[in-house]
Amino acid sequence: MEQVASYHLPPQTGAGFTMDAGQVLRIIDPEGEQVADVAAFAREDRREMLSTKRTIDYSGRIYATTGSLLYSNRSRVLFTVVADTAGRHGLLLPPCSPEMFKIMYGAASHPSCLVNLAEGLAPFGIGVDEITETLNCFMNVEVSPDGELTIGVPASRAGDYVDLRAEMDLFIGLTACSAEKTNNGSLKPIDALIFGAG
Amino acid sequence: MEQVASYHLPPQTGAGFTMDAGQVLRIIDPEGEQVADVAAFAREDRREMLSTKRTIDYSGRIYATTGSLLYSNRSRVLFTVVADTAGRHGLLLPPCSPEMFKIMYGAASHPSCLVNLAEGLAPFGIGVDEITETLNCFMNVEVSPDGELTIGVPASRAGDYVDLRAEMDLFIGLTACSAEKTNNGSLKPIDALIFGAG
Repeated sequence: MEQVASYHLPPQTGAGFTMDAGQVLRIIDPEGEQVADVAAFAREDRREMLSTKRTIDYSGRIYATTGSLLYSNRSRVLFTVVADTAGRHGLLLPPCSPEMFKIMYGAASHPSCLVNLAEGLAPFGIGVDEITETLNCFMNVEVSPDGELTIGVPASRAGDYVDLRAEMDLFIGLTACSAEKTNNGSLKPIDALIFGAG
Repeated sequence: MEQVASYHLPPQTGAGFTMDAGQVLRIIDPEGEQVADVAAFAREDRREMLSTKRTIDYSGRIYATTGSLLYSNRSRVLFTVVADTAGRHGLLLPPCSPEMFKIMYGAASHPSCLVNLAEGLAPFGIGVDEITETLNCFMNVEVSPDGELTIGVPASRAGDYVDLRAEMDLFIGLTACSAEKTNNGSLKPIDALIFGAG
């Protein structure tokens, strides 16, 4: 496939862009153990968006990997995961936010995926209230038998990637996650490539 | 506390109503092993709504019980769980929908929480696109170490209830869940009471 775009996200930053149906978004963890959050909205109607909750329901799993179908809130397939060298991507958690850092860590201010996604998606008329459900690429969240979460070290090593094929025309927000705890204590970049359809 | 309203939901139905800050919603499973879905929106701005994903993040748990704070997509507390005789309520899954019954079971049509919530919330200007995250009262979803979901028998016995104190003025959608599998194979009613503040 022909590469049609590339993005380099420094640590704790984000980007917004469009994808056409059939194009493939490759999200690369160049250094390893770094999470990338993905938000996605249908270009034909921004009220249709990625629903990780419906994805969990229909797949019966809290992780995505090769072959997973990622659904919208209207229960249509937004993405198919067509390749994955890391093996596990999280569906459980919302993007980190200034409010999360305040509630959980008492931080007066902190960079966040929510603000970075909102900045990237602002040109498409999408704001913070709409950004509630994101794919947590490379994130490793485990659930104990009594329902407690453990944020583990991301499964990705340097160069690992996941390929998402767009199944409709999309607005995309992408981040290099800003939360220290999620990324094994060090904040690293994320790279992304888009390959043309066919 | 003084009782100010009561609702009886026959099997596979729903209701919509308002609550004032400080009022308590008691959701009762009169026969046992029956799930009730709750959607909630801020009356001062309907773009603020219950976020089970943020609730999972901030609590570090996939279940709610007495003492749990249920957050909005703006990370404000919508509800406090002030009493609970069942012990476990689900935060993982979206409301069942016609699309879910089609995707998972091939059903051409089926009653659903999504349609029942949308009918209950329609007078408040809230539609299906907004109803994505619900509290699954009495629902018992377990997650295996490799991330697979198991829909268990609801933990509730006849007469069990959960009390949710509204922390802001709310529009509420409530259902007696329509999915056979979620309710141990038989569809039962749900009762609800609202108690006045103070």
